[in-house]
Amino acid sequence: MSGQQDLGITESKEHSPGEWYAEVVRKAELADYAPMGGFIVTRPRGYGLWEEIRDHLDAQFEATGVENAYFPLFIPESYLENEKEIVEGFDPEVAWVTHGGHEELDERLAVRPTSESIIAPFLSQWVRSHRDLPLRLNQWCSVVRWEATDTKPFFRTKEFLWQEGHTAHREHDGAWEETMRRLDQYEHTYEDLLSIPVLRGQKPDHDKFPGAHTTTTLEALMPDGKSVQGATSHHLGQTFAEAFDVAYIDEDENEHLAHTTSWGLSWRALGALIMTHSDDQGLVLPPKIAPEQVVVVPIWQEDTQEEVLDYAAGVARDLDDAGVRVHLDDRDERNPGFKYNEWELKGVPLRIEIGPNEVAEDELTLVHRPDGESAVESRETVAETTREHCEEIAAKLYVAAETNLAENVRDAESRDEILGTIGQHGGYVRTPWCGNEACETEIKDQIAAEIVLVPFENNEDKHLEGVLAGEANCAICGEQAIETAYFARNY
Amino acid sequence: MSGQQDLGITESKEHSPGEWYAEVVRKAELADYAPMGGFIVTRPRGYGLWEEIRDHLDAQFEATGVENAYFPLFIPESYLENEKEIVEGFDPEVAWVTHGGHEELDERLAVRPTSESIIAPFLSQWVRSHRDLPLRLNQWCSVVRWEATDTKPFFRTKEFLWQEGHTAHREHDGAWEETMRRLDQYEHTYEDLLSIPVLRGQKPDHDKFPGAHTTTTLEALMPDGKSVQGATSHHLGQTFAEAFDVAYIDEDENEHLAHTTSWGLSWRALGALIMTHSDDQGLVLPPKIAPEQVVVVPIWQEDTQEEVLDYAAGVARDLDDAGVRVHLDDRDERNPGFKYNEWELKGVPLRIEIGPNEVAEDELTLVHRPDGESAVESRETVAETTREHCEEIAAKLYVAAETNLAENVRDAESRDEILGTIGQHGGYVRTPWCGNEACETEIKDQIAAEIVLVPFENNEDKHLEGVLAGEANCAICGEQAIETAYFARNY
Repeated sequence: MSGQQDLGITESKEHSPGEWYAEVVRKAELADYAPMGGFIVTRPRGYGLWEEIRDHLDAQFEATGVENAYFPLFIPESYLENEKEIVEGFDPEVAWVTHGGHEELDERLAVRPTSESIIAPFLSQWVRSHRDLPLRLNQWCSVVRWEATDTKPFFRTKEFLWQEGHTAHREHDGAWEETMRRLDQYEHTYEDLLSIPVLRGQKPDHDKFPGAHTTTTLEALMPDGKSVQGATSHHLGQTFAEAFDVAYIDEDENEHLAHTTSWGLSWRALGALIMTHSDDQGLVLPPKIAPEQVVVVPIWQEDTQEEVLDYAAGVARDLDDAGVRVHLDDRDERNPGFKYNEWELKGVPLRIEIGPNEVAEDELTLVHRPDGESAVESRETVAETTREHCEEIAAKLYVAAETNLAENVRDAESRDEILGTIGQHGGYVRTPWCGNEACETEIKDQIAAEIVLVPFENNEDKHLEGVLAGEANCAICGEQAIETAYFARNY
Repeated sequence: MSGQQDLGITESKEHSPGEWYAEVVRKAELADYAPMGGFIVTRPRGYGLWEEIRDHLDAQFEATGVENAYFPLFIPESYLENEKEIVEGFDPEVAWVTHGGHEELDERLAVRPTSESIIAPFLSQWVRSHRDLPLRLNQWCSVVRWEATDTKPFFRTKEFLWQEGHTAHREHDGAWEETMRRLDQYEHTYEDLLSIPVLRGQKPDHDKFPGAHTTTTLEALMPDGKSVQGATSHHLGQTFAEAFDVAYIDEDENEHLAHTTSWGLSWRALGALIMTHSDDQGLVLPPKIAPEQVVVVPIWQEDTQEEVLDYAAGVARDLDDAGVRVHLDDRDERNPGFKYNEWELKGVPLRIEIGPNEVAEDELTLVHRPDGESAVESRETVAETTREHCEEIAAKLYVAAETNLAENVRDAESRDEILGTIGQHGGYVRTPWCGNEACETEIKDQIAAEIVLVPFENNEDKHLEGVLAGEANCAICGEQAIETAYFARNY
């Protein structure tokens, strides 16, 4: 399909991360640009990654009482307006359907930018008694937000895939536990499936989901020093319950408003995955999410062809039988070097090379995609050995990302230090903050960095003790600090 | 949540099938009506059934070379117009997005009614050489068709869930094999998962998918005598390849146009499932697709409570360990009669009743949902026995539907016989036909029955020999017959 020159990555991750990212996405066949700006086509190799994320989350959701459902793609304008904060929050970003066939519609329909305002009315219908609570629903769907920015596949697209969970609870505390349980599960998916460590915290009040009591967030640090919001989980308080009358009769026979939550993770997680681990040879994937965990590449001359191919086929069969996702690349028309490059580009975590030597010695040569580390192992225990190497590769990727994160959280005590540190190093700057948006704006205007999270109170934090004791001052305005803020540039 | 009087079905399947169907859908908690006419909300019990269909088809697709992908929700108007037959076919049914945020769009975007015209341009990009073929993609998504008719959940909704497969092939024959392979897989899903027998055939030329070479179809007979189009698989010939330039370089180094197919199954399959097996007590589900395959209902008095509940919990645990989807209904506040009614309404295929007698005798009483048949079985072999009974229930459902189908395919030799037979019995009428749409229109105008399929030539068929020999005459106009047609009223 493509010549060797088309196959390889030509951009540098370090020097032109934007172009490099776009090239990896296209050449690893994850996605292509659609004809309309802001839209992409997700190809099988990209969509398969999304299916793995879906299955990983669904298993956790199902084990904790969540049921999948499906709500309409369209939301009547009047429903959005029922929740004034929602409509204010999303109005500039909504795509509107105005015509069905040749007829103009009586009421415009929003293509869902998020579904609180169509789901809450049904929670209201379905919840009658305290016995109906907690009620936990989730849907996997696409949403549309008409943001007028450049397209960056998975990071910034007008249509994106996500899951959105919506729950109702008797008490404030139950809703808070739910909010945190989902944040925990998102964190588990980032760490376990994607090998990406994250920071946890909440958004400053001025950056919460419209109408929410608290917006909690996971933030992942990209190698270029920018932060990615990895997932959010909102405690919506009683805002939506009040607007849409989600109420229940409690044991005391009185009617009470429910407390609701919503939480979502989008295909931006794929963007973070690609950006975090990949390199100038192409995509790098942790084994748990890789469509092919292992590629077996036989290396033969005419006189060794039969024995090498037989041996390689046996290895592939054993791996397949053991439940390892394996691909045997026995194409005759391509040489081993071409195959190495192709599977490196596509991110296969582990390569098994088999030549006449390996056959003679009853061995295998294993090569790790992330760093090229190789090992010679016995043929006999191939399935077990492969599992161990896959775990090692996942751990390697996690540790590298964790090291990057640890090295890039810095403290700053003054406005100039915030600006200087982010300007020089990127990453996160942790600083005492008075809670006023104006102080964030001052930083944002100068270096496009903003407060991506405020840690939860129980986090370990250098400034926190002082902040809690009322003894620290805002690094920007000098007034009394009430929180610790993490500033960063972000996607 | 609801009193006993709200729980039961009040409409009769025989006397008011439309109202009965709507009541089953709502009371079994499969779906609710959305605020906008033509849209529904799919509740967890309904969506779970759709997930089972998805998994059943995905397994077959994956085993035969299909990969899942995701294409944009919107299609630019000019793309639809590239394939004039598509735009003519769908123009009156397209929902149009005209505004993004506060801006009017330069070009209107269609909410996808089907995706041939956005997928074909990418097939064109991705196909270069004969080595890239066959190329097989599928997506699970929702589509919108603005049909101005009454809403009937799963059967007739403006937005519906489906999968759409799109493939490209070197040769006409390869595309034809693909078309038939997918029809076979759909048939397998109907028979194996849904316990519904189907008829196979093709649509008359005037009723093909816009631009298709051949549209093949599965038709299922509903108990009210109407036919449901269960799935379609289209051989698109070279129409789309030509319009969107899907071409490849063959071994002869010349460029050739590809041959494409598309095939889809929608949540209408859920409508057929509900309609076929359910009854005046509510939903009936075959065990393979049921969210709970077995409900265990313990029956106790105060003095037997502990032993009965222990015993019942043990049975449920054993079934769960054996991979059976089981629910133990040990609610204290409901009596057994209430529970029976509730689980019958919700369609659980098998009930296990456990009272003091069963405990004393080390037995179980099993009751089949479809017909109330009961059996006393040994406790010891509960998992195996349950499996056998589940198979029996699935077979029972299939046989009942098959008998209904076999009894309702009738032959007719004249226009009056067609009208009279369908008018009196419903079902299918098989008759020689000249191939002219006008003859179908005559029947349609009088009794709203149309030609739902023309059998494949290799089918057993009473008239076919005569038709092929040129010796039969069209039952309607008396001219020479060229095909056998199946007339039916349909959904």
